[in-house]
Amino acid sequence: MTTIFEDRLHRSQNALAEQGVDALVLFPSPNLYYLTGFEEEPAERHLLAFVTPEDFAIVAPTMYAGQIMEETFIDHVDDWDDGEDPMAVVEDVLDRLDVSGGEVLLDDRMFALFSLDLQEALPEASFGLASEVLDDLRITKDETELEALREAGRISDEACVAVRELGADAVGLTEAELVEEIRAEIESRGGEGFSFDPIVGSGPHGAQPHYRHGDREIRAGEPVILDFGTRYDGYPGDQTRTVVFDGEPPAEFEEIHAVVHDALDAAVEAVEPGVTAGSIDDAARSVIEEAGYGEQFLHRTGHGLGLEVHEEPYIVSGNDTVLEPGMVHSIEPGIYLEGEYGARIEDIVVVTEDGCERLNDSPRTWEPL
Amino acid sequence: MTTIFEDRLHRSQNALAEQGVDALVLFPSPNLYYLTGFEEEPAERHLLAFVTPEDFAIVAPTMYAGQIMEETFIDHVDDWDDGEDPMAVVEDVLDRLDVSGGEVLLDDRMFALFSLDLQEALPEASFGLASEVLDDLRITKDETELEALREAGRISDEACVAVRELGADAVGLTEAELVEEIRAEIESRGGEGFSFDPIVGSGPHGAQPHYRHGDREIRAGEPVILDFGTRYDGYPGDQTRTVVFDGEPPAEFEEIHAVVHDALDAAVEAVEPGVTAGSIDDAARSVIEEAGYGEQFLHRTGHGLGLEVHEEPYIVSGNDTVLEPGMVHSIEPGIYLEGEYGARIEDIVVVTEDGCERLNDSPRTWEPL
Repeated sequence: MTTIFEDRLHRSQNALAEQGVDALVLFPSPNLYYLTGFEEEPAERHLLAFVTPEDFAIVAPTMYAGQIMEETFIDHVDDWDDGEDPMAVVEDVLDRLDVSGGEVLLDDRMFALFSLDLQEALPEASFGLASEVLDDLRITKDETELEALREAGRISDEACVAVRELGADAVGLTEAELVEEIRAEIESRGGEGFSFDPIVGSGPHGAQPHYRHGDREIRAGEPVILDFGTRYDGYPGDQTRTVVFDGEPPAEFEEIHAVVHDALDAAVEAVEPGVTAGSIDDAARSVIEEAGYGEQFLHRTGHGLGLEVHEEPYIVSGNDTVLEPGMVHSIEPGIYLEGEYGARIEDIVVVTEDGCERLNDSPRTWEPL
Repeated sequence: MTTIFEDRLHRSQNALAEQGVDALVLFPSPNLYYLTGFEEEPAERHLLAFVTPEDFAIVAPTMYAGQIMEETFIDHVDDWDDGEDPMAVVEDVLDRLDVSGGEVLLDDRMFALFSLDLQEALPEASFGLASEVLDDLRITKDETELEALREAGRISDEACVAVRELGADAVGLTEAELVEEIRAEIESRGGEGFSFDPIVGSGPHGAQPHYRHGDREIRAGEPVILDFGTRYDGYPGDQTRTVVFDGEPPAEFEEIHAVVHDALDAAVEAVEPGVTAGSIDDAARSVIEEAGYGEQFLHRTGHGLGLEVHEEPYIVSGNDTVLEPGMVHSIEPGIYLEGEYGARIEDIVVVTEDGCERLNDSPRTWEPL
């Protein structure tokens, strides 16, 4: 029986042949997992997989060889020991696979540590990015992937509701302490840790869209941005709610929160097969611009979600990618008042035949639950 | 007052001038943190710092600009908005810094996504790795760094002792459940999470040196490898103990554990200023080879430890790097009996004027505490 990974590998080889690409070189990354099922942190040792239209090989440190063969369909590893020259093994593999030039695509996340070595080993080749071939495969999710994404969304939502129910008890906790509360709620529901370093941005910290969390204490009456997700079966959840745990927020916060909520709904409404990713950004942005906060919406409206928390389709002005059923992305408009607070609400959606399915449905209000 | 980061930046600029390097290009990584204090996950948006012998610039998405200026000494960011072309901003910066060719060093961890862009923008340049300049600075730790490393070691040791004290209560837990026990012990002592995905390798899993952890239940009488550490003030701890929680292990395990312990002590004894990193590997390896297990010692003896869990000096055969006071590295010999179990013991050491200081000192025995 062929595994889902072998099937994906064959489809990538067909795509290489169609596009006249001579070789794809991957390194520990979501691309490598997608094609082989092998998962490992990127590190300083040469661990490189070579895909050609006809062939496949993997070069790895000896100590990984058993693990790779045990966990995947791969039945041969070209291994090297600490103290040996890994590039000698790479060069043997390139010879065997008959790769000496032409068009070679490198894993988008490959460290310069390895890409410079490969460029030196293949002086005649021209280099591009693996995403040129793999994004088209990875952008549409199959039913197994969608099930994992739905479950990750469900657990993330439940954890969000659970910490919101702390209400006044959350006042006085530091942002970092609230992160640990969220972690516990995720773990108790079977989530596999955080899908990214979570954001708990209280008060002015919430006005920095990519602030993570720190030792600031949460106060009554101030908005707190809760942007986090867990993983399930390798696939991430991601959601944002902006909440007030206790007391009355500033009047302008209520106004910007309502504008952001309208922008979210307008963008969700706009999602259907055949429209561009850029048009979804336009739908959210025009609501915020009309309300007079265009300058305070500092980022794109969203990003695709799959093995990576940020991947295609990016929901950004000018992106001509046409949405198709099975694509998954976030919609997360925000307004940021520097030095004061921010408001962002985020749902993940799956494009369906006639619109979209939301993978998040916890209350989008800011009031204490 | 100059911060420690400005001081490091100036030292790196002097090193660039001395070595005739025209520019260093960094991206979110330990190198960027070391020189600026700015910490962020590598991601898909162009966030690149340019260091020349005379100048410094940073290109970043607008939404990071406030955060960078707030958290660091940097008072200007060349920013770009989602939807704009970040490489247009990069090209302006290269013009302003007068970088058009020559020798350009790329962050070792820079994604191909960015290194290919830079190579296209600088067709006349020759490219190398940032480590060629920065490793010499980063390899020797100052007293602030050593204090953080000591504390990370101390907390890691205490957490290891605490879970070993579970004794027979650990039997029946899965490896993943034991990871959560370790996490709780770390958090309760002020550690900042895990410094790397921890290894809890029970029985045959312990024979795969880089196995992480899974759903296998820990059994009585079987060796379990506990390889983990926490972070403190940004710096990692790392230690390994191989333990039996309850019952009697196989006789051969006692033998290989004793050999590994001897190899550790021989290598620690060999550490002093003026000897090579390779000679420390030789000291551990010769003990294991003499005992007849040379083929079962599948990896190098150790790695440097600093902002990265693996960095120079690598304790590997043939490494001519000469040890100097202030260098920090692991010593972690192991013997792996495929399909059965493994034994590894690891301490971190700091090279001192006349030998070394161990940063770990929890019991190196395998017996229940």
